[in-house]
Amino acid sequence: MKSVLLIGAGKSSGYLIDYLLSHAVAENFELTVADINMEAALSKTKSLPNSKAIVLDINNQYERHQNIQKADIVISMLPAFMHFPVAQDCVTYKKHLITASYVSAEIMSLNELAIKNDVLLLNEIGLDPGIDHMSAMRVIHEIQRNGGVLNSFRSFCGGLVAPESNNNPWGYKFSWNPRNVIVAGQATAQYLTNGEYKFLPYHRLFASSELIEVEGYGKFDAYANRDSLSYRKIYGIENIKTMLRGTLRQHLFCEAWHVFVMLGLTDDSIQINFPKQYTYANFISSFLPGSGSDLVQRLCQFTNKKVEDEIIKMIVWTGLLGNDLVGLEKGSPAMVLQKLLEKKWVLEESDKDMVVMQHVFEYTTAKGADKKMSSTLVTIGENNQKTAMSKTVGLPLAMAVRRLIKGQIKLRGVQVPVLPEIYELILDELVLHGITFVEKEELA
Amino acid sequence: MKSVLLIGAGKSSGYLIDYLLSHAVAENFELTVADINMEAALSKTKSLPNSKAIVLDINNQYERHQNIQKADIVISMLPAFMHFPVAQDCVTYKKHLITASYVSAEIMSLNELAIKNDVLLLNEIGLDPGIDHMSAMRVIHEIQRNGGVLNSFRSFCGGLVAPESNNNPWGYKFSWNPRNVIVAGQATAQYLTNGEYKFLPYHRLFASSELIEVEGYGKFDAYANRDSLSYRKIYGIENIKTMLRGTLRQHLFCEAWHVFVMLGLTDDSIQINFPKQYTYANFISSFLPGSGSDLVQRLCQFTNKKVEDEIIKMIVWTGLLGNDLVGLEKGSPAMVLQKLLEKKWVLEESDKDMVVMQHVFEYTTAKGADKKMSSTLVTIGENNQKTAMSKTVGLPLAMAVRRLIKGQIKLRGVQVPVLPEIYELILDELVLHGITFVEKEELA
Repeated sequence: MKSVLLIGAGKSSGYLIDYLLSHAVAENFELTVADINMEAALSKTKSLPNSKAIVLDINNQYERHQNIQKADIVISMLPAFMHFPVAQDCVTYKKHLITASYVSAEIMSLNELAIKNDVLLLNEIGLDPGIDHMSAMRVIHEIQRNGGVLNSFRSFCGGLVAPESNNNPWGYKFSWNPRNVIVAGQATAQYLTNGEYKFLPYHRLFASSELIEVEGYGKFDAYANRDSLSYRKIYGIENIKTMLRGTLRQHLFCEAWHVFVMLGLTDDSIQINFPKQYTYANFISSFLPGSGSDLVQRLCQFTNKKVEDEIIKMIVWTGLLGNDLVGLEKGSPAMVLQKLLEKKWVLEESDKDMVVMQHVFEYTTAKGADKKMSSTLVTIGENNQKTAMSKTVGLPLAMAVRRLIKGQIKLRGVQVPVLPEIYELILDELVLHGITFVEKEELA
Repeated sequence: MKSVLLIGAGKSSGYLIDYLLSHAVAENFELTVADINMEAALSKTKSLPNSKAIVLDINNQYERHQNIQKADIVISMLPAFMHFPVAQDCVTYKKHLITASYVSAEIMSLNELAIKNDVLLLNEIGLDPGIDHMSAMRVIHEIQRNGGVLNSFRSFCGGLVAPESNNNPWGYKFSWNPRNVIVAGQATAQYLTNGEYKFLPYHRLFASSELIEVEGYGKFDAYANRDSLSYRKIYGIENIKTMLRGTLRQHLFCEAWHVFVMLGLTDDSIQINFPKQYTYANFISSFLPGSGSDLVQRLCQFTNKKVEDEIIKMIVWTGLLGNDLVGLEKGSPAMVLQKLLEKKWVLEESDKDMVVMQHVFEYTTAKGADKKMSSTLVTIGENNQKTAMSKTVGLPLAMAVRRLIKGQIKLRGVQVPVLPEIYELILDELVLHGITFVEKEELA
């Protein structure tokens, strides 16, 4: 019987675990869910057949080695910076590893040894990155198969809140790791426009968003996401003229978030020793130029806005200008902002989240015609446990694990899901779970 | 015979080595100068009596251990991030260590073991940090001894170019590590104004400079330097109302540098793979919004300035809009900017650099009178080898080493020079080398 070890039973692991356990008995494999918190693990396995829940502290090298040695396939749902020791062990003990995280330079350094040891280290197989790569590659490969040339690829994705649960001015609630939302975008974005490299530093990123229309759902802000340039090679489209991967937020979110960035509230690189009785009002006053207790007026001056402007209302709504205590002795500005927003951006029990993804392809056909095509996915969650985020991150991972157990994936080394061997089976199966792209020809 | 090991014979080590070797024979100690480059070491020792030059790669653990074990006192002139293994060895082998760098959290973690092993880890004993601490503490201790209360302390320092050698629009040439100039200020500055904590993120730092007048030398831009708050405790002035440490530049430097920051050119956190034949004009075009070959006009639009404005002239003067090749295959924006400026901000052989330091103290005397006092140091270098920077960084370090050999410094553990035991002897001796503060009562 094959054995799968899942490390980290966090927010995004529900669908992943349900899927695997729904196949485990019939397909003769077992799933061990390991978490630092036994209850988190147990609440996910629900003691179903062929499941086991265990406590595992991955910093305990002995226990980590023991458990990885017992498995055939390891899934790491740990925060990205914690994957590396797990990946090292997997290569050493010749176990396959699957994660939804971006390939780091550290992980990439294991490629040769992984190939030598007949091991697959499959990364970026969640939603974004994950479904984005797979769905884009299926279209790109089809265009190329028909003799077409791709001139422009722009791809956007956002984990948002469904319209029916959208009852705050930001149109945002946390459906995944809040920390990742707070520090999102903190490296100069790299992309390509009409053949020219474009570099956009963090302090201009949210001020440079563009509006993207998604039919039936209105307009969204889109800001550039990390390094789009590197995917030219990975996608096999090295001569493309425009290439941009971006993140979606409700319209106005980016402009308001830019105020936080400009104030300095998202900085996670310094540790401040806060005075006693330090309030959020004290906190923002420390970042605003000038002095005085009329914080709204100082904020308006800083942003060059009026009290009645929506951006000011959005910021005031967070409580950042209020007299609640920060309640931290020491921390970064980003930690303070996260603590505040975690109270305001709660996905309540009956709230539904929403995942939106849209690719826009511009290409020239073999016959020389210029075409434009969009491919759009919208998935709505059921509640704050069965989220669209958890579903779209977890299912591709789970399906890849199952295909690997079945011997349907033969790739080895460090991989991302851009090859038909992986994406064909998974995209087809995702449709059965309601995760479907709608393609539409647009005016070129 | 006592033995001193100096690791790193870079730009700032000339005066340091000359001073020690001028005392070595009479006071019966020897100096070993270790560098990764034998010529650099030999050019500094000049084979003088009681000197030795050796090649040392500090990443070679065996050689590092061997050489540290042979020494009584180690001076590390390495880049700050490389001190830690040396400091660990010093504590293990019970050798004193002296550096001109800021105390890092890592170094601080060695405090208890250093005390236990009867070892002194003396840091921040160069110019800034170094002479600033010593000269400020002598004044602060005198105010306190007379029953006064310090209300405000503001301290500024800059490594600049002397007026007679100032022949470029930035008023700047590299008199120390260029990299440190390019990435200076890349963490939210923390200071105190009228009892309120102030936090200033990097992308507003250079836009928030203030003008500081230094008698006889005109007005300088001053921008806030790192974490001023932490020095309240170190200086023993925990109830002070205003506390700011800042860095000086020629007037307009900060406004022009802010354009580089806003463009994103000082980012050192991403690696870009540059296309072939990539020019500086391509580089800045990638950061400027919009497109088109009229870079000056796009720069004017970005900065909201006119072609004839001094700030635009300063930027154009660097060659950033020109067609020279960048000549890097891969690197960060900061590396590209450094490469460009290293060609333009050369301290030529006969050029003289200038160090300016000014403290401004505001205090209430025992009798209740409000006083304001400034204390100012200006030191001009002799040429591009015998720089004011090398002199003011190297001499305090060298003097501390000599006092330690003589047994005049009994402190142990992790220290910075804020106690009379260190600063009295050194400040008095610095005067003999022309490093003298001029005190002046100002209007309160």
